[in-house]
Amino acid sequence: MSDFRDNASRRPILSHASRPLTVTIAAWNECGERVPTAIAGEFPLTLYVDRREIVTLMTLGAAPEALAIGWLRNQRLVTRLDDIASVQVDWDSDAVAVTTRHGLRDADERLGSRTVTSGCGQGTVFGGLMDEIDAVRLPADRRLTQATLYALMEAVRHHESIYKQSGAVHGCALAAADGDACRILMFVEDVGRHNAVDAIAGQMWLDGLEGGDKIFYTTGRLTSEMVIKTAQMGIPFLVSRSGLTQMGWEIARRVGLTMIGRAQGRHYLLFTGEERFSR
Amino acid sequence: MSDFRDNASRRPILSHASRPLTVTIAAWNECGERVPTAIAGEFPLTLYVDRREIVTLMTLGAAPEALAIGWLRNQRLVTRLDDIASVQVDWDSDAVAVTTRHGLRDADERLGSRTVTSGCGQGTVFGGLMDEIDAVRLPADRRLTQATLYALMEAVRHHESIYKQSGAVHGCALAAADGDACRILMFVEDVGRHNAVDAIAGQMWLDGLEGGDKIFYTTGRLTSEMVIKTAQMGIPFLVSRSGLTQMGWEIARRVGLTMIGRAQGRHYLLFTGEERFSR
Repeated sequence: MSDFRDNASRRPILSHASRPLTVTIAAWNECGERVPTAIAGEFPLTLYVDRREIVTLMTLGAAPEALAIGWLRNQRLVTRLDDIASVQVDWDSDAVAVTTRHGLRDADERLGSRTVTSGCGQGTVFGGLMDEIDAVRLPADRRLTQATLYALMEAVRHHESIYKQSGAVHGCALAAADGDACRILMFVEDVGRHNAVDAIAGQMWLDGLEGGDKIFYTTGRLTSEMVIKTAQMGIPFLVSRSGLTQMGWEIARRVGLTMIGRAQGRHYLLFTGEERFSR
Repeated sequence: MSDFRDNASRRPILSHASRPLTVTIAAWNECGERVPTAIAGEFPLTLYVDRREIVTLMTLGAAPEALAIGWLRNQRLVTRLDDIASVQVDWDSDAVAVTTRHGLRDADERLGSRTVTSGCGQGTVFGGLMDEIDAVRLPADRRLTQATLYALMEAVRHHESIYKQSGAVHGCALAAADGDACRILMFVEDVGRHNAVDAIAGQMWLDGLEGGDKIFYTTGRLTSEMVIKTAQMGIPFLVSRSGLTQMGWEIARRVGLTMIGRAQGRHYLLFTGEERFSR
């Protein structure tokens, strides 16, 4: 049981409760033909921390343990993986029970106010996040080349399995430049795009990965919260196939993030942090 | 001042604080050229009801008064427009102050639990919504023809102004069939797709429009919450260019909604409620 071996190094004890990702239903197309259609799973998952109900996330269910850990990480309710003793998902009760070693950080204060961020499905304690964003320091000496960017876009294209089958999901990837090539280290899809970000943040902790030499890719829009979370993970490069919002742009400039959007085919727009990018 | 005339009929007194919708920044394209790029505005708007802070929404700011009213409507915190005395948006403080005539319905209970729905940016009191969904009755005798569907898709294509300029927004339309033609009655875009739904729900109240003979269109995915809100507005037809999630499908069947997705060009998939649809 690798869980118990892991626990010896104070890695949390984890369930392994990934769900089937798509179901196939019958739909009718424009010709009136009945066509089997794969659709993405969507399940409520209620997060309990030390028996306190915190939030219910609607999720595809692909990586529920990493999602719970990453949600707590990105909400700044837990500051080290070491603080988490156990993460147990039970789909019979649609619940994930997290046990901490020292409780949550400023739980009452942080869970008191909530901000619903742009189409992101996070209900974030946003004020708190904004206060902390100025403390983020992203490495200035990292570089991204256009060749690596194109390699990333190509690699992502081959990864989006659920999206190809069913649509209705967002994908996020954690990647690392390898010369002008690009390796995808993690790829997560979810019905909520911020679930995918959070699941990657959780898996980065579980795998002991730092963000400083990584590239974060999302199919979703570059809204304020997407930028904040990328910066919080310490990742200097954020790439999206989608567009940008004004606050996303302002925060990216404030934290010195290198942000690229509208990345499709051989096209892209470099929005901020041009000093790290070379064609 | 139409506001005061409106108020004579107990219509709430409204500010008119729509914001500029896009700003233009300089980006660099794949050729290294500096290109002016329009991006969508994204602003925090904190909702206060009778001086109590409820939530902060990240919004494009196009229809903040209708958004505040529709958010309260779709959260089932207010059951009639008549209960709202005034809605005043002040962008200097990023706040919208709603004054009710009788307070909010079950406010403490409803605001106590929160569910973060799939990529929707609503932090909905979802349990409450699910309890009520079974009370929804959608008219069985309405019909939608393929010709009207195509007319709707064509009409929407001409409407998406912000999206065309900047991307990074979702659009929603309220439409009515007119023989085989289709009239768009409202079209709202926002950085959060559920803001767009809520703004339309609010404007429907302000304009005294019922949902029973309407068609709701969204560029966003057909997740559980999108289906629930359409049903709550009493609208029997939901059309999207995007895909569907499992829970969206299950709830649409439960409430008997006619739901069409992947509507692009001359293609679509009819997912549920086929008895109301004819080719």
